[in-house]
Amino acid sequence: MPSVYFLTGNPHKLEEVRLILKPYGIKVLQLNEKKLEVQSDTLAEIARAAVEALTPRRYVFFTEDAGLFINALKGFPGPYSSYVYKTIGIKGVLKLMEGIKDRSAYFESAVALYTPEHGVRVFVERVYGRISEKPRGTGGFGFDPIFVPEGFSQTFAEMTIKEKNKISHRAKAVKSMAEWFISNYFA
Amino acid sequence: MPSVYFLTGNPHKLEEVRLILKPYGIKVLQLNEKKLEVQSDTLAEIARAAVEALTPRRYVFFTEDAGLFINALKGFPGPYSSYVYKTIGIKGVLKLMEGIKDRSAYFESAVALYTPEHGVRVFVERVYGRISEKPRGTGGFGFDPIFVPEGFSQTFAEMTIKEKNKISHRAKAVKSMAEWFISNYFA
Repeated sequence: MPSVYFLTGNPHKLEEVRLILKPYGIKVLQLNEKKLEVQSDTLAEIARAAVEALTPRRYVFFTEDAGLFINALKGFPGPYSSYVYKTIGIKGVLKLMEGIKDRSAYFESAVALYTPEHGVRVFVERVYGRISEKPRGTGGFGFDPIFVPEGFSQTFAEMTIKEKNKISHRAKAVKSMAEWFISNYFA
Repeated sequence: MPSVYFLTGNPHKLEEVRLILKPYGIKVLQLNEKKLEVQSDTLAEIARAAVEALTPRRYVFFTEDAGLFINALKGFPGPYSSYVYKTIGIKGVLKLMEGIKDRSAYFESAVALYTPEHGVRVFVERVYGRISEKPRGTGGFGFDPIFVPEGFSQTFAEMTIKEKNKISHRAKAVKSMAEWFISNYFA
């Protein structure tokens, strides 16, 4: 079973990603180093810069950055979702959405993978949905309690990790990475 | 008259800083290069990283980062003030403040100066005040129309650049830098 390192300090992400990669036979080890986080309007650039700052290495590793983009708020909180979560939080975001009809939003995930042979590759995926009126559920993390993916009535926080991993932005991006990785290394 | 380079892409900042440094006999030239902006909870770290990314150089240069920190919002928008300004804007911040009694806030400025002889030094200053009920004034930039400094009734945007430069966070930090620079190089 191949092992890859995941550069993250977030235990929720680590758990989600481990479960996503298990069916591919890929074992995930945590790379617990200081992660460079640049300011940028795109997650792809943020993830890429974090990985590039640590290269070259002799082993395969990746990182993942995600954000919630609300259309009526011009993409806010976007790349700064974790800072916004820590400060104004879910309550603040719902207050900003008061009286706004267009509640459409998407979660985006950018995975940057480094391999000694191919350098850095970035995989970006989205899941579209809407902002709920109230927070619901206790699963997941971050803004999961107020995000309802298209075609569902539950929020991400009302799903089990397994259910979320069938449709989430993070699962889609991590799976894209896994497929690229396997077809280039184990095909 | 000594010349120093100012790493910025913001014409408003350039104009303010030129006026602040004029009485010191320091001429400011724009250093128009790509500026690295890291994500961090402190402006000092953001300004330092931007300067360090471009060193060593044979000449003196500095950069400046500023943010508005609102106490009732746990410091939001803080280091991400310019992103927040571009997305939810003044309107969004006022909406977040609706019904909140504690309107205290401060502007912080961090100036990171590089000299070939001393490396990087950072100067951090603040101006305390409050968030107004409505935006007022057309001067300044960013969140100036909703910030009323302590001891004044006008917002920053209702002041002339000269008035703002007597009391602002940016003026205080830039003056600290100028005084250090002059006493180390021209005393």
